[in-house]
Amino acid sequence: MSARLNETHDPALTSWVESANSGTSDFPIQNLPFCVFRRLGSGEPFRGGVAIGDQVVDLAALGDAFDGAARTALALGAQSSLNALMAAGPPAWSALRLALSRFLRSGAPARPAVLVSQAEAEYGVPARIGDYTDFYTSIHHATSVGKLFRPDEPLLPNYKWVPIGYHGRASTIGVSGQDFRRPIGQTRSGSGNEPQFGPCTRLDYELEVGIFVGRGNVQGEAIEAGQAEEHVFGLCLLNDWSARDIQAWEYQPLGPFLSKNFATTIAPWIVTIEALAPYRAAWQRDAADPQPLPYLDYPALRTRGGFDIELEVLIETETMRRDGVPPARISQSNFRHSYWSVAQLVAHHTVNGCALQAGDLLGSGTQSGPDAAEAGSLLELSAGGKQALTLPNGEQRVFLEDGDRIVMRGWTGRTGLPRIGFGEVAGMVLPAR
Amino acid sequence: MSARLNETHDPALTSWVESANSGTSDFPIQNLPFCVFRRLGSGEPFRGGVAIGDQVVDLAALGDAFDGAARTALALGAQSSLNALMAAGPPAWSALRLALSRFLRSGAPARPAVLVSQAEAEYGVPARIGDYTDFYTSIHHATSVGKLFRPDEPLLPNYKWVPIGYHGRASTIGVSGQDFRRPIGQTRSGSGNEPQFGPCTRLDYELEVGIFVGRGNVQGEAIEAGQAEEHVFGLCLLNDWSARDIQAWEYQPLGPFLSKNFATTIAPWIVTIEALAPYRAAWQRDAADPQPLPYLDYPALRTRGGFDIELEVLIETETMRRDGVPPARISQSNFRHSYWSVAQLVAHHTVNGCALQAGDLLGSGTQSGPDAAEAGSLLELSAGGKQALTLPNGEQRVFLEDGDRIVMRGWTGRTGLPRIGFGEVAGMVLPAR
Repeated sequence: MSARLNETHDPALTSWVESANSGTSDFPIQNLPFCVFRRLGSGEPFRGGVAIGDQVVDLAALGDAFDGAARTALALGAQSSLNALMAAGPPAWSALRLALSRFLRSGAPARPAVLVSQAEAEYGVPARIGDYTDFYTSIHHATSVGKLFRPDEPLLPNYKWVPIGYHGRASTIGVSGQDFRRPIGQTRSGSGNEPQFGPCTRLDYELEVGIFVGRGNVQGEAIEAGQAEEHVFGLCLLNDWSARDIQAWEYQPLGPFLSKNFATTIAPWIVTIEALAPYRAAWQRDAADPQPLPYLDYPALRTRGGFDIELEVLIETETMRRDGVPPARISQSNFRHSYWSVAQLVAHHTVNGCALQAGDLLGSGTQSGPDAAEAGSLLELSAGGKQALTLPNGEQRVFLEDGDRIVMRGWTGRTGLPRIGFGEVAGMVLPAR
Repeated sequence: MSARLNETHDPALTSWVESANSGTSDFPIQNLPFCVFRRLGSGEPFRGGVAIGDQVVDLAALGDAFDGAARTALALGAQSSLNALMAAGPPAWSALRLALSRFLRSGAPARPAVLVSQAEAEYGVPARIGDYTDFYTSIHHATSVGKLFRPDEPLLPNYKWVPIGYHGRASTIGVSGQDFRRPIGQTRSGSGNEPQFGPCTRLDYELEVGIFVGRGNVQGEAIEAGQAEEHVFGLCLLNDWSARDIQAWEYQPLGPFLSKNFATTIAPWIVTIEALAPYRAAWQRDAADPQPLPYLDYPALRTRGGFDIELEVLIETETMRRDGVPPARISQSNFRHSYWSVAQLVAHHTVNGCALQAGDLLGSGTQSGPDAAEAGSLLELSAGGKQALTLPNGEQRVFLEDGDRIVMRGWTGRTGLPRIGFGEVAGMVLPAR
């Protein structure tokens, strides 16, 4: 289903919501990403919404606007979290998308009463996330970070065979706008055997793509790679905040724990796999890289296993805010560089019988590109904390300081095709407790 | 609260449920552990229950038997999961325990209508588990396993400072009786660079204690060690099934993933911290061990930081079942050997601001004791798979075979005090898919 283009992808489509037709909006009628939202400060219940231009379509306000499968899906999407819609599977998602596209199209009767301005909306985490898994799919990130820790063997022998992942913390995932206190914990500097205890001094972001699971699988069964995308509802932006000094001391032998679980921030918008169909990318391997094992291989992998999604990271310091300076871009990357495809992550995650559930979130891992300037974390941009970045206003950064706000954006667009955006994910570091 | 004994602990108490008074039951009136249950095969909704002798008290059938705080807590405990009761905190737990103790006491009017025989009950996972964390608290286990992987440095430098833990998978946690397929995955034998793909050949159990979180904490705040037990609802038995060959290949650098997340099994019964008050143990450290950092220290730690809980593992093979041979004990340990206390785990988990929620589950990590025969896994008992165990019927085991059923039991008892048990957690290995 996600492989085929249909009328909802037609580049010529416009909407009666004029702001969707600017050519610069993240949310033209070809996008239609999902969120949960309510009117800002209203205390109303959250409900599902879909972005169009600078507005949100209130799914709960659409009532009986649709028929058949779209009507059923609409009722699921109008709930306070998107889990039920996610569980309904591709035919339901597709029917709802088509109905929304026709409803919002230029020529259809304008129904402004079902719109809420994004300027007057606040967002929730779009699903009850049962389990959160973070992967490590950028070979460029794995190699750069590996060089810092293991100059002799930057890339471990399993990397090119196993889509490395680990379980993360669901309870501390927040939506864009999440401000969090600098974590406190144990660290150990190079000298001395005893650890120190105090606020993290090497606080970092990680530029990631989030993957929301749609239909799950029964425990004990696996999802085959060729069918895996039918189990994916859509993609979002994700910032995996990381405390590098806590991580270095705690992570052996069982992996990152307190260095990651204090906060993870996602954008409110989930762009569906169907919306991304025109923006697929070839899956890239070097000739010397091993072929994937059969359970990680499938027909569409090499031609369109990837997603061509531009990603960028911006920083806004306290000084920049005070001086009215706009956020400064500190890196840019693209999701097409991922060594493992989304379908491979799903197939790998379930090959042992692990049960995925609707609303589960997978993180792609830091998306660093092949060039040093495309690094998705400060750890890489600062060469392990040794080389400060100079920002356009003259400030310098090695790691994050209190008051720093990180903004990530993503979009995709190709000649002759409309630009589709992911909105943004922003979060700010507050001083330690 | 949990530090003080009260009338519910009186060793002289008996119940009008005669089976509770045998002296050998896991569930005398001094215990009163919680579960969720329904009548076997009935399709009824699950609801909260409390064990007494060979019966379950149906909390939903108690109606308005109690007054005040106990009545409120009863209504929470009667729900289909115990999350609301867990979130209510120690005064609610204590009020309900006292009311149940008085209700079930010899001399109180017998009310057999509120009982369901355990022989006619089936159990559910007692809470919606938002996040599951597994720790690594047995220094004996960490040292034995470390010797296998790193003969030069069995115990990593962080072990005596950091309560090592990692996030596990919540979606595949099942209750006793969980049978699961042998996981399939990537492994790599010593020879050759390329991995193999197929069913796990080094399947293991891990003997653990599960810790259910009661009241949570707000993200960004920490739970102090001295108050941490007020945030713990109770303890249960936990089997952390592990695929050692998958683990060895996948675990660097981000920790165990598919080697653990295919299944985790817990006993249906949660024994409350209050019930365990008479069975506390001194917290043990060698003189050469460092003192815990201040955030991991608290007044009651050294005198009663531990729990004196005997643990045992039994195996029942397909042959033993066919021949009518009872399960054979293969190891025995005690939770008092844990290097880190339960309160330290909670304090550590939240020191960085990570939010715990009611119903979250923490695993203690494999509870191996100081003697080789007290090892809590086959990996240790078989010296890394090199030395087969001979079972009483002559069969041999290095790792688990299809049809093997593992049973874990736990209990505590001291001279002059009633024996309190944890029931059992059983699970069986089915052939690979």
